[in-house]
Amino acid sequence: MFDMIAFDADDTLWHNESLYTTAQARFRQILAPYCCAERADQKLYETEIRNLVCYGYGIKAFALSMIEASIELSNGRITSQEIQQLLDLAKGMLAADVQLVEHAQSTVCRLSASYPLMIITKGDLRDQEAKVERSGLRPYFRYIEIVADKTREAYAAILARHNLAPERFLMVGNSLRSDILPVVALGGRAVHIPYHTTWAHEHVIPSEAERQGYIELEHLGLLPELVEELAAGRLSWLA
Amino acid sequence: MFDMIAFDADDTLWHNESLYTTAQARFRQILAPYCCAERADQKLYETEIRNLVCYGYGIKAFALSMIEASIELSNGRITSQEIQQLLDLAKGMLAADVQLVEHAQSTVCRLSASYPLMIITKGDLRDQEAKVERSGLRPYFRYIEIVADKTREAYAAILARHNLAPERFLMVGNSLRSDILPVVALGGRAVHIPYHTTWAHEHVIPSEAERQGYIELEHLGLLPELVEELAAGRLSWLA
Repeated sequence: MFDMIAFDADDTLWHNESLYTTAQARFRQILAPYCCAERADQKLYETEIRNLVCYGYGIKAFALSMIEASIELSNGRITSQEIQQLLDLAKGMLAADVQLVEHAQSTVCRLSASYPLMIITKGDLRDQEAKVERSGLRPYFRYIEIVADKTREAYAAILARHNLAPERFLMVGNSLRSDILPVVALGGRAVHIPYHTTWAHEHVIPSEAERQGYIELEHLGLLPELVEELAAGRLSWLA
Repeated sequence: MFDMIAFDADDTLWHNESLYTTAQARFRQILAPYCCAERADQKLYETEIRNLVCYGYGIKAFALSMIEASIELSNGRITSQEIQQLLDLAKGMLAADVQLVEHAQSTVCRLSASYPLMIITKGDLRDQEAKVERSGLRPYFRYIEIVADKTREAYAAILARHNLAPERFLMVGNSLRSDILPVVALGGRAVHIPYHTTWAHEHVIPSEAERQGYIELEHLGLLPELVEELAAGRLSWLA
């Protein structure tokens, strides 16, 4: 049925968005002498999006955007002690424990017995590699692919490099924009497992046609059974 | 003779250290109201090395270390306008034109006619990918490998992934520490082409035994002829 099952990592195998949510709450606190919470959120988001082209994804990019936004939000009155607090916040994020999503361990353990598994994730190379190691899940995955952005071209390059036919490739992830739609567009298979919060930038509303192309599950623990049903032909891909 | 010739990128195919040298001169200027140039250099270097574990290599890591060092060097008196100047400096580095090293274009063009070529570079994924594209050299390279750090293990993983025997693998680069010694330690071949400046962190003094393991060339333009001599058996690897 599948020659490869690939997993997104952040917010699919382990919690990540909560790290940013917590950091952003702290950002609002640090900026409280200068602006309201709504303005802090709005400006930080704008700054992150504007900087995506030069900084890309990840915690270092987030840290630089926090510092830039803090200068603007405070009209330059932010103190160096407060900027140091933003640096410390970023270092804390980089050193944070990896908290697995419920069922992550049992699901990848079970699937790895029958399928080669791959992680496809975006962001800082070093940070993502460190999280894979700290997660304890490394032994279950044959390949780790870290890309700058999860575009259709990035997936096509991975499929080509590993000599994979799209219809025998399954991608599992929480982001429609990054994990699901580009894979479906290539003719690949995809399972969407929503995370309870999604970064606004990753939010998209799929078309009716797009919605036909993937299966949605409530949690990762349901994946092995779904894969078995598909493999046994008891469930066809398009319901 | 070789199944793959791999090149380091920064300061081997294109100028990079000069970007940091120029940025560091500007850092000293910005910090001039607070400390002397020597102290600025020393503290920035210390901060970069201390932060390697959490930030890794690349311009974003450098930017965060500049900001941290500037707070310390000024005893917290650095202004947010000056920190903004450091952010602008980093963005300027990320957007800088890629300046090819002399002979880079002709050498990779000539070698790519007879050998599959690869780039192996470390640092920010997005920044390195952007530089490869902007360099105009992309078409000559079959593979681009971007790693978090150029350790012996990182090279071993690349050799394994591409099914390459070490003795039929040639690595070309300017850093003994990152490009040459780890490859020689694996039984691979290496050509060292020193760049006129080397970041202190990359500086190592090779042992007599290590010096037997690689060939040193004055510039990249001499590489095609060396490879031809080796392939024709007119030159043996160990002189």
